[in-house]
Amino acid sequence: MDRTQTKKPPEPMLEVARLALREDIGRGDATSLSTVPEDTTARGRFLAKESLVVSGLEAARAVFFSADEELRFEAFAGEGERVGAGTVVASVEGSARSILAAERVALNLLMRLSGVATLTGKYVEAVSGTDARITDTRKTTPGLRELEKAAVRAGGGVNHRSGLDDGVLIKDNHLAIARGVSEAVRRAKESSPHLLKVEVEVESMDELEEAFRAKADAVLLDNMSPEEVGECVERARREAPDVIVEISGGVNLETIRAYAESDPDLISVGALTHSAPAADISLEMELC
Amino acid sequence: MDRTQTKKPPEPMLEVARLALREDIGRGDATSLSTVPEDTTARGRFLAKESLVVSGLEAARAVFFSADEELRFEAFAGEGERVGAGTVVASVEGSARSILAAERVALNLLMRLSGVATLTGKYVEAVSGTDARITDTRKTTPGLRELEKAAVRAGGGVNHRSGLDDGVLIKDNHLAIARGVSEAVRRAKESSPHLLKVEVEVESMDELEEAFRAKADAVLLDNMSPEEVGECVERARREAPDVIVEISGGVNLETIRAYAESDPDLISVGALTHSAPAADISLEMELC
Amino acid sequence: MDRTQTKKPPEPMLEVARLALREDIGRGDATSLSTVPEDTTARGRFLAKESLVVSGLEAARAVFFSADEELRFEAFAGEGERVGAGTVVASVEGSARSILAAERVALNLLMRLSGVATLTGKYVEAVSGTDARITDTRKTTPGLRELEKAAVRAGGGVNHRSGLDDGVLIKDNHLAIARGVSEAVRRAKESSPHLLKVEVEVESMDELEEAFRAKADAVLLDNMSPEEVGECVERARREAPDVIVEISGGVNLETIRAYAESDPDLISVGALTHSAPAADISLEMELC
Amino acid sequence: MDRTQTKKPPEPMLEVARLALREDIGRGDATSLSTVPEDTTARGRFLAKESLVVSGLEAARAVFFSADEELRFEAFAGEGERVGAGTVVASVEGSARSILAAERVALNLLMRLSGVATLTGKYVEAVSGTDARITDTRKTTPGLRELEKAAVRAGGGVNHRSGLDDGVLIKDNHLAIARGVSEAVRRAKESSPHLLKVEVEVESMDELEEAFRAKADAVLLDNMSPEEVGECVERARREAPDVIVEISGGVNLETIRAYAESDPDLISVGALTHSAPAADISLEMELC
Amino acid sequence: MDRTQTKKPPEPMLEVARLALREDIGRGDATSLSTVPEDTTARGRFLAKESLVVSGLEAARAVFFSADEELRFEAFAGEGERVGAGTVVASVEGSARSILAAERVALNLLMRLSGVATLTGKYVEAVSGTDARITDTRKTTPGLRELEKAAVRAGGGVNHRSGLDDGVLIKDNHLAIARGVSEAVRRAKESSPHLLKVEVEVESMDELEEAFRAKADAVLLDNMSPEEVGECVERARREAPDVIVEISGGVNLETIRAYAESDPDLISVGALTHSAPAADISLEMELC
Amino acid sequence: MDRTQTKKPPEPMLEVARLALREDIGRGDATSLSTVPEDTTARGRFLAKESLVVSGLEAARAVFFSADEELRFEAFAGEGERVGAGTVVASVEGSARSILAAERVALNLLMRLSGVATLTGKYVEAVSGTDARITDTRKTTPGLRELEKAAVRAGGGVNHRSGLDDGVLIKDNHLAIARGVSEAVRRAKESSPHLLKVEVEVESMDELEEAFRAKADAVLLDNMSPEEVGECVERARREAPDVIVEISGGVNLETIRAYAESDPDLISVGALTHSAPAADISLEMELC
Repeated sequence: MDRTQTKKPPEPMLEVARLALREDIGRGDATSLSTVPEDTTARGRFLAKESLVVSGLEAARAVFFSADEELRFEAFAGEGERVGAGTVVASVEGSARSILAAERVALNLLMRLSGVATLTGKYVEAVSGTDARITDTRKTTPGLRELEKAAVRAGGGVNHRSGLDDGVLIKDNHLAIARGVSEAVRRAKESSPHLLKVEVEVESMDELEEAFRAKADAVLLDNMSPEEVGECVERARREAPDVIVEISGGVNLETIRAYAESDPDLISVGALTHSAPAADISLEMELC
Repeated sequence: MDRTQTKKPPEPMLEVARLALREDIGRGDATSLSTVPEDTTARGRFLAKESLVVSGLEAARAVFFSADEELRFEAFAGEGERVGAGTVVASVEGSARSILAAERVALNLLMRLSGVATLTGKYVEAVSGTDARITDTRKTTPGLRELEKAAVRAGGGVNHRSGLDDGVLIKDNHLAIARGVSEAVRRAKESSPHLLKVEVEVESMDELEEAFRAKADAVLLDNMSPEEVGECVERARREAPDVIVEISGGVNLETIRAYAESDPDLISVGALTHSAPAADISLEMELC
Repeated sequence: MDRTQTKKPPEPMLEVARLALREDIGRGDATSLSTVPEDTTARGRFLAKESLVVSGLEAARAVFFSADEELRFEAFAGEGERVGAGTVVASVEGSARSILAAERVALNLLMRLSGVATLTGKYVEAVSGTDARITDTRKTTPGLRELEKAAVRAGGGVNHRSGLDDGVLIKDNHLAIARGVSEAVRRAKESSPHLLKVEVEVESMDELEEAFRAKADAVLLDNMSPEEVGECVERARREAPDVIVEISGGVNLETIRAYAESDPDLISVGALTHSAPAADISLEMELC
Repeated sequence: MDRTQTKKPPEPMLEVARLALREDIGRGDATSLSTVPEDTTARGRFLAKESLVVSGLEAARAVFFSADEELRFEAFAGEGERVGAGTVVASVEGSARSILAAERVALNLLMRLSGVATLTGKYVEAVSGTDARITDTRKTTPGLRELEKAAVRAGGGVNHRSGLDDGVLIKDNHLAIARGVSEAVRRAKESSPHLLKVEVEVESMDELEEAFRAKADAVLLDNMSPEEVGECVERARREAPDVIVEISGGVNLETIRAYAESDPDLISVGALTHSAPAADISLEMELC
Repeated sequence: MDRTQTKKPPEPMLEVARLALREDIGRGDATSLSTVPEDTTARGRFLAKESLVVSGLEAARAVFFSADEELRFEAFAGEGERVGAGTVVASVEGSARSILAAERVALNLLMRLSGVATLTGKYVEAVSGTDARITDTRKTTPGLRELEKAAVRAGGGVNHRSGLDDGVLIKDNHLAIARGVSEAVRRAKESSPHLLKVEVEVESMDELEEAFRAKADAVLLDNMSPEEVGECVERARREAPDVIVEISGGVNLETIRAYAESDPDLISVGALTHSAPAADISLEMELC
Repeated sequence: MDRTQTKKPPEPMLEVARLALREDIGRGDATSLSTVPEDTTARGRFLAKESLVVSGLEAARAVFFSADEELRFEAFAGEGERVGAGTVVASVEGSARSILAAERVALNLLMRLSGVATLTGKYVEAVSGTDARITDTRKTTPGLRELEKAAVRAGGGVNHRSGLDDGVLIKDNHLAIARGVSEAVRRAKESSPHLLKVEVEVESMDELEEAFRAKADAVLLDNMSPEEVGECVERARREAPDVIVEISGGVNLETIRAYAESDPDLISVGALTHSAPAADISLEMELC
């Protein structure tokens, strides 16, 4: 743990941190420069104001590290840990000006990522006892994909593709252009690298059969009812037991249990990243 | 309108677009490259799936422009326009591969920004008839501050500071370090540039009086009840009529009306940007 | 074709072009600035000095575009086309100073990429009539991976992973650290995204069996003799017909035929990109 | 030596390293992340698989430093040292995941640069005993010029210009546009900075005389036979003893000795950098 | 002081330093690489050759830090300190090659910034005893604004806006387009963020009155005589005592005293940054 | 001329322009956004307020181009042209907001560069009739070297080295470390690229002789009196007629004539770039 806390944060995190600090600080923190003496030191404590699943402490550390390498940041909770309201999840100590200049950016990341992890945790809990796994989508915040995908993992979910290049997923818009499921899958298997699997969206039993015949590795059932999903899953288990079945669309915290009980492998939920409310966390500072 | 649609999008928007496209596309769109012929052209239509306030069409245009300068993007709704479910708000036409590579990023921005505008619109409506204006905070998404601040304007709100350098706002954490309201305001007025106003957070009537005596330009009342706000506003109008009164904390769509009727100048709401759910918009494609 | 030649080149190519031009031109082309008048215009023709497979004309176009958007570049051969010695494969026309400043960089890319395509073509020819496909490795030139992978395709090969993130390939160094084939494959299948396949290197029949039992999607046979490869392939076809068999190591233009006749699916050859001699191409200029 | 190994590598090397790592790692090393525990440490040893001249260990160190500043890299051979097959030229120790993520990029640079040094060494050896020096050209790999020029020095060669701005070299394409040798040299001497020398390509005795009269500092004889070179050198020594004579074109390991015995000052060889096969080096890892 | 000298310099300074070093060093310091052995160490002392106000030592430190993190830089004078000719203001010690590569860039910054501070000091001295403060403008060197604004503070001046976004200043060119002082001020107050003040240029008593009525926060009197300024100030103090009065134009070291005695709040002087002669400082090196 | 004005400005100029605009505009031009309607168009005219030598109009054009590609910029004076007070040297037309956002940056560059050209012109005039040429130094503004060197040419001067890599200049600080003139020159000639000349600073007749014997290409006489220079030049012409003689130090507009009459080849003047006062130019706008 100690080691984690003194090692330089990974470069992609530092890039996000630098970008965000530049955006927020601009030419300087006019308030702290004029009201806080240069040599004042302080300690800040990050306080969970509600029950939440922690994600983003490493990103917060990267923010403080980017602002001032001499700040000492300490995490008291692990990535993915559930904490109750009132828990101090981390502290930072050093130059008061540096902490004040960086706190908002650190909180913005921490609150958003913990928000994603907490919402994911609710979905994961809702399907507990089934074999369905909760997965994310590409509906992430521009610039924060890797952090948000880590937050999904923190919440107990698993990750779908990272982008357009590490998986083939033929969706309705592709099918509208290519000539049907069979032909699209055939083209994809022929010309994409041999380590990428091919998944295809299907809208009917016929298309499902087409997908099996074309040797698709996975199928996506979009906007079906739980009953329809159940029939498709059953057919898949019987005819193509190695094919992965993913569902999406129409899924929310009320409906997901019914879907999960239809026994798909994966349920993808865009809301995990596009509509998670921020977790409520504050920073409280004191002189030291 | 025509002119808007052929002019090069502004550089900060292009930077966000390029960053987001690189993040999503990575080394190439494996699906489209294998399933869609290079010379296929298509048309996509952006469809509002619910009633919403539009924001981000210019950002979406920047995404398509960055992906392929030959795509033709057309907006059918203005920034800040309220549209009903089923409205086509924009279209894009050109290389099918280019549209498919860029659609998700364009939607991610458009849905998030329209979400912010739509939520802002609800707050603005909730205070209609009062003199209170809804304003944002620095609790924005790292990397998207300018876009989200524009979305707040689209929803009828006004913008607070853009960052730490274009306004002095002395908050609780500064006061914990500086020596009280009077001294902090005095320092800020003395050493910050003469075109920046000085705002200070106050927690009691005594501090409010201190702020007036120190000639603060604005005061922030944080986490007070509507009644307390009312008393403070009354005092301010009587003793320091030019001082701007802002409130924050404990404000949501249920409580905001009561606060607004206490007659502050500004109500700042972090949730506008940190917890707005994405607006539901889809892209539907067809060959052309 | 016309369209290809006026459209802005893709951004990743332009980045390579700009980097290379900055490296070569530095603060300015001292020779042309002093010996060639600013308003002189010229035409240059790219001449193949030997039989070769063309790759990189689009990269050359990106170089001239980056140097001076007003240069007119015209390609007379397609990517992957075989041309004889003496063929003019492209021309460029416009400001003489601009052409002279950019020619070396354009040639450096074109010669290297055509070199890769030409060498790949020899390997592909050597296995013709078999089902084995020639594939590349990650042994590419730092900064030029995507261009070199395109050159491999131009020469008739297929591409392996683009990098460490779009495929799982467990090699000897991983196995030295993880606990054997079974356990490594199990971990990979459990925790990597569901659209990535898992390939594992095996060194014996026993490990091959382990790989089959662990449901690896592909196996890599490294440094085996053609006979050993033959036995493994036979076993694979019988016991795990969907598993992809790749071989590598000890493969050169003399030995590859024997390997191909052992009937693997893929033969990966590092030399395609790390040791291909440059193709001989020159630029001849004249006033116009 | 110790000092070399703990000091931060020079910035240009780090830039190449970061670019190459980003290209290879993408969004993360899917294999190591899933098969190698985070806290595993290991040691890797770089093993020469053939006799070679070492170049690029400092670049390899920069790669590991960029990937993880806590890796310990140790070089056992000096830049330019000749080592036999089986020699361990360097080691790296630390986080197994970090080493695995960076090894391929480190090897790609080390193998390429040692390949250049080794090939240069063969040319240098071929002219031993003569006064001719082997020099490189601008036919280098885009993005790697400085590293490849260092590799040429490691192999015993000397460097020509670094780019278009640190020397004037009037070649055939310039002469086709300017009006002959005399006029071109005159213009160059008049308007380029006084610390740059002027070299001009000549194709005949007449042009050689022109170059002498115009006070060129150096002449380039391109594509002449060894006998023609001999005549030109003799004339130069007699009439313009301070003029540097460089030859190029038609030079390979078979023909170079004859050229060197004609006694030019410099022989430039494009193949040193555009066609050097990679040196064979592997990394062998073990737990530690 | 010790602490200041070992801490990493702030990022914006490092960016300027890196840019300037890259510009000056290019591909390497040909002179030092060939004449100074790699392991030579030396000490350099920065010597003021005339009386001056010091500014920029932190920037000089950032230059040496960027060139080689192992150089030890020590400052013997504080930012804003006046020193006499012959004073050693700083020293640097370490690798001779590193010092020689960085010295010119360090001196270029130090001489320019101390020049700005020294000239500012003369203006400040010229108004001593009055209440007028000397302020800078946006007429700074592209890329060096923050450093030059710090130099103005070092010389005893105060800073105006940092840029176009942290203050509203309506000047003649805006007024030529907007419809007069009243309307322009009204628009600015209505639609700019509430923490920005609004300043407006006025050219007559009538416009001054307009500005007061429109509740401008500050007025700029451009190119008036000291007498006219006096009248305006008097009117302002009487009618709008909180309004800040700034003057500019026609101000130089001869005329400024008369202006200052007319009692404006601020006198802005473009020459502080656009025409300050460099302070005379040299670096003297010795082996160590 | 037309062509110059529509062609995309060169990339290095655009980089300076973008950097400077970002620095000045920050998050937006608060004044114009609030006071000038979006669709207002205007025309601005650049007016010389004093006699000056023009330099930097191309840089000004790059600024407007970077701010808004649709602005139309027209130059009425050529680079290096002398114009009288009252001359309109350029105009710009288009969106009023765009012009107002970019004008200060354009003026900052234009005034500085014309200042450099004008001061250079004075030095050139002061030596007219002699063979001495005025040259610049590396004492330029960080980030603006190429532009300032062009301004020196515009004023009639010639350029010295562009940086540390395109010429060898052994100065006092090198000599303090290397072992004297002979040894330093010998090392430099041996190990620097053959197209770079070697210049060495000498402080006495003995060192001058050493430089001749060591075959230095040029000598720098620093801080000598005109008489001493005269003697050195005479000796050089007699003993080493091809050696270039440069002087520096103690040169100003009063003393330079005497130095020039001592007949050196080059007189380098740091003040050309480090202490040139800005030329007085204003922008006047009107609606159109």
